[in-house]
Amino acid sequence: MPTFRSNIVVFNLIARRAFTTTSTKNMGFVEKVRLLDYWKIQDSALQSEFPRSRLVLMVDRRLLVTKDQPDVQMVELSFDDLKQRLGEYGLQFDLSNSCLLDALSTDVDMIPLFGTSIDAADPPEDSPISKKEVLKQLGNSLGGRFTDIRMAMLTMREERQRNLLAKFQSLTKWASIYRRCPKCAAALKMRSSKSGAECVTCQRVYYPTFSPVSITLITDPTNEHALLVRHRGSAGGVFTAVAGFAHSGESMAECARREIAEEVGIEVDSIRSLDMSQPWPMPDSSLMIAHVAVAKIDQKISVCPDELETAQWFTRHQVKEALTTTLADPLLKNLPRTLDDRQTLHYIPPAGAIAHQMIRQWVDGKLENHNSRI
Amino acid sequence: MPTFRSNIVVFNLIARRAFTTTSTKNMGFVEKVRLLDYWKIQDSALQSEFPRSRLVLMVDRRLLVTKDQPDVQMVELSFDDLKQRLGEYGLQFDLSNSCLLDALSTDVDMIPLFGTSIDAADPPEDSPISKKEVLKQLGNSLGGRFTDIRMAMLTMREERQRNLLAKFQSLTKWASIYRRCPKCAAALKMRSSKSGAECVTCQRVYYPTFSPVSITLITDPTNEHALLVRHRGSAGGVFTAVAGFAHSGESMAECARREIAEEVGIEVDSIRSLDMSQPWPMPDSSLMIAHVAVAKIDQKISVCPDELETAQWFTRHQVKEALTTTLADPLLKNLPRTLDDRQTLHYIPPAGAIAHQMIRQWVDGKLENHNSRI
Ligand SMILES: [Zn+2]
Ligand SMILES: [Zn+2]
Repeated sequence: MPTFRSNIVVFNLIARRAFTTTSTKNMGFVEKVRLLDYWKIQDSALQSEFPRSRLVLMVDRRLLVTKDQPDVQMVELSFDDLKQRLGEYGLQFDLSNSCLLDALSTDVDMIPLFGTSIDAADPPEDSPISKKEVLKQLGNSLGGRFTDIRMAMLTMREERQRNLLAKFQSLTKWASIYRRCPKCAAALKMRSSKSGAECVTCQRVYYPTFSPVSITLITDPTNEHALLVRHRGSAGGVFTAVAGFAHSGESMAECARREIAEEVGIEVDSIRSLDMSQPWPMPDSSLMIAHVAVAKIDQKISVCPDELETAQWFTRHQVKEALTTTLADPLLKNLPRTLDDRQTLHYIPPAGAIAHQMIRQWVDGKLENHNSRI
Repeated sequence: MPTFRSNIVVFNLIARRAFTTTSTKNMGFVEKVRLLDYWKIQDSALQSEFPRSRLVLMVDRRLLVTKDQPDVQMVELSFDDLKQRLGEYGLQFDLSNSCLLDALSTDVDMIPLFGTSIDAADPPEDSPISKKEVLKQLGNSLGGRFTDIRMAMLTMREERQRNLLAKFQSLTKWASIYRRCPKCAAALKMRSSKSGAECVTCQRVYYPTFSPVSITLITDPTNEHALLVRHRGSAGGVFTAVAGFAHSGESMAECARREIAEEVGIEVDSIRSLDMSQPWPMPDSSLMIAHVAVAKIDQKISVCPDELETAQWFTRHQVKEALTTTLADPLLKNLPRTLDDRQTLHYIPPAGAIAHQMIRQWVDGKLENHNSRI
């Protein structure tokens, strides 16, 4: 089940022969998956592909996206273009600050898609131009603009774009933390792909981690009311479903049941998974897995003050209005500003969030209570 | 969403008052969950409960279970009993080699359930008695016997027992590895519960990790055939479903599709999740999430030699016979011994494995192809 074992040598010999003696053009899905697997662990093969690669970019943890609104996409650049444009601003990139995201088909073969994350130095104190202005010009010269990662996750329409961004952010953050072996404190040798790192002393291999998270839409037994919550520190007036990290030794259903008890203080009668999941990279890397649960509406709600400002039952009509508001204002530009109004349901998360999809399906009557089980 | 933030202080003050001024007797589920959460992070509170706790035990990574066959359970001991019996063998335990597993109700309040993992010193060279014999006697004196963890996971009938064992093994292994900060190499201060560790220098907090794994039963479009695989190094004649760790940036469905391509070299037309999941602690900690997928049967199978010895399509009747054999011999005592026979379908995994449940549901016609989607 773990992907890499001693016997991998055999497979690599087969793979190397396959990938060096035949063209990678017109590869099917199986070949693409195996090529990515090969690039992930073969640093020298990946290094030799790097100058032919295409790249997406973060500068100071802000993502380069197309200028179109609201349907944004990551801007993909060729290696040479990126090198030249960044060079004009005194910026550099290399394999050390890049991670492998995907394999792309060209007319003749397959090439890697990398994510490159660089930090821009502050301009000199006597500079006539601010850093913000520099980044704006750099974005322009690269055919796009820099934006907040969370906002990009919430608003990008294509699942592929969101999942690539989740991978980009997760691998970048993981690779910035895993420098030393947690067991013996020796240096870790990071793979070029950023898909693993090996201790130079004890040979233990560490992989990028992310945790399963249950996200659960709670309804009452009539299925006409939903319990939504407002997180501390989230944008005013935005309500969403209850979510939380799974703990060791829990099934996903047990995780959902515990998180609901911890966060809103109620017990649910049944929990069902929804066959929807989404990688989500902030604040920590996770894989959100959607559930529905049924709870009696007369239970006393007691929110965990560490996490939540409020949790309330809403009618399907109230939630539908918030959905409509959100769809009409996908960038949440008209968030309520007064303190009172911030505690009222105005928005749900934008369409890029799995919570949006779950709530929307419920509003549309597509999440029935049938088939529910403990 | 992350469980612990700065504002936790507020909640702790509330919690401390609640848990010290009222009896913990007759707590509901919500109170139990919040008490466990409090014990997890409050070392001093957990330390003061330790002498009142009940404990389950591993010695040399073997688990103490009841003598009954085949329905084994972990042996639960009182702190005083365990201290006395181990002491008779020159063995000790304390909080440092124990992890918090659960909260148990007594007649008057709630007490912690710990898992304690100790290593037994080898007997002196001139000892008349072998270590194996010593452990057998120790097991007897504790009212049980020591057994292999994997076999215990595969054969314990109660989900609660299996999940507690998964937690015990996962936290024990994690706590043995996470001694130094991967970012700055300073010492990590481990919580008494083993639910987290904080860097003494950079204050970064690390949590026990486990990864989502897709486990997928592949059927043909008629739903009369299933594709099962035999893992390298697994017991002879045992076939199971395709499984593999999710990678950063993948949904669970994408993970299942990629793992199937990587491991058996075929493409599937549809994937659906089954609302079944199971924590599994070996070889690495994971959360297995069950799926079904449909694939055309005429595709050429090409197994990844690193992982698998073989992958084959079987009829429902063939799988049913293997299920019957497995149920009649749940400890797999009659595994085939000749090399040829080891490559033939004789068994599926025992009832403690989620693969067993998935395959059994399919044999019984409970996994229909309806509702399938890409
Ligand atoms: Zn090491
Ligand atoms: Zn540190």
